[in-house]
Amino acid sequence: MRYQKIPDETVRRLPVYLRGALHLSRCGVESTSSEKLADLIGVEPWQIRKDFSYFGDFDTPGVGYDLSSLVSRVNNILRLDAGHKAALVGVGNLGSALLAYPGFRTYGFEIVAAFDIDRRKIGRRQAGVSIEDMAALGALNTCGLHLGIIAVPETASQDIADAIVKAGIKGILTFSPRRIAVPRGVKVITIDIAIDLARLPYYLPSNRR
Amino acid sequence: MRYQKIPDETVRRLPVYLRGALHLSRCGVESTSSEKLADLIGVEPWQIRKDFSYFGDFDTPGVGYDLSSLVSRVNNILRLDAGHKAALVGVGNLGSALLAYPGFRTYGFEIVAAFDIDRRKIGRRQAGVSIEDMAALGALNTCGLHLGIIAVPETASQDIADAIVKAGIKGILTFSPRRIAVPRGVKVITIDIAIDLARLPYYLPSNRR
Repeated sequence: MRYQKIPDETVRRLPVYLRGALHLSRCGVESTSSEKLADLIGVEPWQIRKDFSYFGDFDTPGVGYDLSSLVSRVNNILRLDAGHKAALVGVGNLGSALLAYPGFRTYGFEIVAAFDIDRRKIGRRQAGVSIEDMAALGALNTCGLHLGIIAVPETASQDIADAIVKAGIKGILTFSPRRIAVPRGVKVITIDIAIDLARLPYYLPSNRR
Repeated sequence: MRYQKIPDETVRRLPVYLRGALHLSRCGVESTSSEKLADLIGVEPWQIRKDFSYFGDFDTPGVGYDLSSLVSRVNNILRLDAGHKAALVGVGNLGSALLAYPGFRTYGFEIVAAFDIDRRKIGRRQAGVSIEDMAALGALNTCGLHLGIIAVPETASQDIADAIVKAGIKGILTFSPRRIAVPRGVKVITIDIAIDLARLPYYLPSNRR
């Protein structure tokens, strides 16, 4: 089932709801309300209800959200239920941190391939993944991978994007603030690590600014 | 001037608008509309207008948003105009990537202190910052720093948070998915790198899921 005309902002919040629901589940909670979920993750309750309303009824009147059904439905909407394998390009400091990051498994992701240009790294294994030569990016085609994570210096990000798109990648997560151009049908999500820091001073007490 | 009752979601989007406005400015654009800005950053135009409406009039009818005034007002609202110095705790792979990350300067941030427990790192300089002993976190008090970035393993994040809060830190950016408890008046922003990946499969063509 495909859902149409869902705002990107709603899609962006769904994983946040999922994380909150998973957290409550792990604490042994079985059902919750939009108020409690909102309080946990820091959004407004009406926003949660509105976002879920795009996908039909999520809650039972008087009971609220059943957490296991909520988790399974959001996983289904986001298409996380099947699990996803991703390729990582760039095994520098950031790439190494990503390879070791346990949080990807929360959402069913696994980095199964890694590429770098550094001869000293190629052929080594890191976090259980063998590092391949970046010149062999074309091999992604034969692996049937469709998700790529780009963690290379900014100046190289467009070339890498071109190469992995050519090799069949349809979804890219990039840590380079530089905008990368991709053909229609390829989705790029950019993470700017600094942008979350940019709202922190807003919350400082006024004598500490 | 303090602004009251601004939703956290609005505060979260302001740096995104700022980044878009800075991008247009760098391209030589002098004014823009909510439609063009929305198109650039991937939100709805009404959302931009609504978010800005909390802070008074941003646009001139018939002209739109003057970009230099927009940048300066958003910088002022977010209190980025004075510039901010931050301390980094944990100089592993992620911490090293953060130290080298050029994007912080976009928003006026500078990492000026770094701490680690690894004897081999302590005393060394990296990206122009000297790495200090984590046992000396109390020294933050004397530096007058109020922003801290935590990039340590998940199991250590609460202890580090306790230590830097004791040393006067009022705003924390943490990369640990584990929730950390802080006293009232301290703001914590958590970055879960995986959560942005979690919405990527939603956009994949249906035969590539």
